[in-house]
Amino acid sequence: MFARRIDRLTSSLVRDILAAATRPDMISFAGGLPAEEALYQPTLNDGKLPDIWQYGQTEGEPRLRELVAQHARALGIDCTAAQVLIVNGSQQGIDLVSKLFIDEGTPLLTEAPAYLAALQSFRLFGAELHSFAVDADGAQLDQLKAQLVPQRCVYLTPTFQNPSGYCYSDAERNAVAGAVDAADAILFEDDPYRDLAYDGPAPAPIAGRLQRARWIYQGSFSKTLAPGLRLGYLIVHPDFITPLTRLKQAADLHSNRLSQALVADCLERGALATHVQSVLPLYLARRDAMAAALQQHLAEYAEWALPKGGLFFWLRLKQRVDTRQLLQAGLDAGIAIMPGDAFFAGTPQQSCLRLNFSHANPALIETGVQRLAGLLAQANRLAA
Amino acid sequence: MFARRIDRLTSSLVRDILAAATRPDMISFAGGLPAEEALYQPTLNDGKLPDIWQYGQTEGEPRLRELVAQHARALGIDCTAAQVLIVNGSQQGIDLVSKLFIDEGTPLLTEAPAYLAALQSFRLFGAELHSFAVDADGAQLDQLKAQLVPQRCVYLTPTFQNPSGYCYSDAERNAVAGAVDAADAILFEDDPYRDLAYDGPAPAPIAGRLQRARWIYQGSFSKTLAPGLRLGYLIVHPDFITPLTRLKQAADLHSNRLSQALVADCLERGALATHVQSVLPLYLARRDAMAAALQQHLAEYAEWALPKGGLFFWLRLKQRVDTRQLLQAGLDAGIAIMPGDAFFAGTPQQSCLRLNFSHANPALIETGVQRLAGLLAQANRLAA
Repeated sequence: MFARRIDRLTSSLVRDILAAATRPDMISFAGGLPAEEALYQPTLNDGKLPDIWQYGQTEGEPRLRELVAQHARALGIDCTAAQVLIVNGSQQGIDLVSKLFIDEGTPLLTEAPAYLAALQSFRLFGAELHSFAVDADGAQLDQLKAQLVPQRCVYLTPTFQNPSGYCYSDAERNAVAGAVDAADAILFEDDPYRDLAYDGPAPAPIAGRLQRARWIYQGSFSKTLAPGLRLGYLIVHPDFITPLTRLKQAADLHSNRLSQALVADCLERGALATHVQSVLPLYLARRDAMAAALQQHLAEYAEWALPKGGLFFWLRLKQRVDTRQLLQAGLDAGIAIMPGDAFFAGTPQQSCLRLNFSHANPALIETGVQRLAGLLAQANRLAA
Repeated sequence: MFARRIDRLTSSLVRDILAAATRPDMISFAGGLPAEEALYQPTLNDGKLPDIWQYGQTEGEPRLRELVAQHARALGIDCTAAQVLIVNGSQQGIDLVSKLFIDEGTPLLTEAPAYLAALQSFRLFGAELHSFAVDADGAQLDQLKAQLVPQRCVYLTPTFQNPSGYCYSDAERNAVAGAVDAADAILFEDDPYRDLAYDGPAPAPIAGRLQRARWIYQGSFSKTLAPGLRLGYLIVHPDFITPLTRLKQAADLHSNRLSQALVADCLERGALATHVQSVLPLYLARRDAMAAALQQHLAEYAEWALPKGGLFFWLRLKQRVDTRQLLQAGLDAGIAIMPGDAFFAGTPQQSCLRLNFSHANPALIETGVQRLAGLLAQANRLAA
């Protein structure tokens, strides 16, 4: 009865965990939720809603597209508003790009680990996933280069990646751009965490460093302003804007105009930068609180790098642990974590956990990490 | 480079026409746009936006789902809020249902004519489209029955259909329900125009008349409140809610929460019914203005039935005319119309036009129909 893709539509761990993580007594390190205190609350001119009730343009509101293009040009991406497609958050961008490139069996290259919901979307459309490691030693560029193929898409989250937190250096970005250009591959760069930088700005996007290869650059307002707005954008090589716009039209005609108007107002007033600046101290404090708690309670069980941005610590466990069982034990103990294996296209070499540090306050972070240490101690005893 | 489906992503006539139809001097009968005067303008409690900035639930806001289920139960659809999935307007519902059922080559049964953007979505996913006629003599139920197959989806817009304006009678609805039950087919009933009824309420949905077959019922707030809100809903047989929710999550996590909160407020206050009641006289006047203008200027060239609801007249031309050329000549003459052939899965037996009567005021309707008569006179002279 169902299409074949439904067999590939595995139960979404994220969704189930987010459901469990809403229990009031739960300390959640599981989701990628911004702090409640960090959510942008748009202000209305004269207390009135903007006049956006008629059908709008598929590509997005002209004013917002122009502002997004300006923002991207400041990051070194040579583009005009005509290359911008406004979407309902990054997830829709991934859906549309999946539709653009993926048939059943289409090879696609990702990082290992990579953003879970992107892997799910690529799989749903039937992609054959290949990957190269992004680990404690950085991005394994030899693995990347060996797998680049002309006109084949490579999906990267080079800036404060979800889940690993890794940020490609300037040199790594140039190397990736050179390799993608040389192979005439297609770059899909997903960049939702760029503005959440705690130790200075991240190097400029890879998309702007390409000389020849075609590219798609994705940004989001979910992490910087508010996820409830459901707004993100694709900026794309001119070859891609027409088919992507038609795919967007077939998907839902256009994005919500109310959110687009509110975000355009925000950008126009320069309030995005102001808001992000106001949020960074909160996230920095939480990151450092988690770093301290991990150092105190978890050094025995795991290794990690301090993330310079984004929302996550990525823990590589020193012993192999069934992280799905650990998740369940955690939920029973009032602590929600994210098992690492879901972030791999293949089988990970090491047991990993992703811990979000933005949603819980420092006191809860300390308590939660303590609980997690107890669970890991128990898991290691059982494994021994 | 692109997926195979991109070859099936034909240029969207709707989109191109909507673009041309925004010229200030254009009288547009082409789109399906509600009248500007009819757009619902939500009011805010205390002039404040609702607090909806965090991620929301994939299925939709619980309050809105409950209100939608109540509304559907009043129409005879036995359902609970757990069967409701909030989507970004009907187009997304069609995208998700396409993902649920359609592989390349999957047969799917539609009306002829049928809603253009649904045909486009079904084709994009690779459906093999079959159809039965809905014409001046009503729905051809023998054609329908002959093509019903167990677990195969049939897509119907039985209430004031876009484009034909046809509304299935009570007896036709019972016959369709019986046939779908007998065949154990799957009904996808799309019902966005139900509330725009000018000559008394439409018979209850077919979905609520099924005894055995599985079903999907779709509604929208675009025609009754405002398209810019981008909100609609699927209510579905329990077998379908889990895969559709996962598909929605993979598509864009969840629908815009701001629109959901505004629409829930509207439903809770009973303002949907009040608003629709306030809009009906305007649409009725425009329908009757178009009926009078057609009678006066076009009786020589076309046949039509008076639509009892919805937004469209469906003209069957007495002579064969190249309606794409007529569209172009119309745009040059400042009148936008919709060629009928785009609404058929196969080749139509007759040249047809769809005329929207909701967007232009009565004076412009008269002028526009006059212009159209001139174009048809010219086309007939050329054809002779």
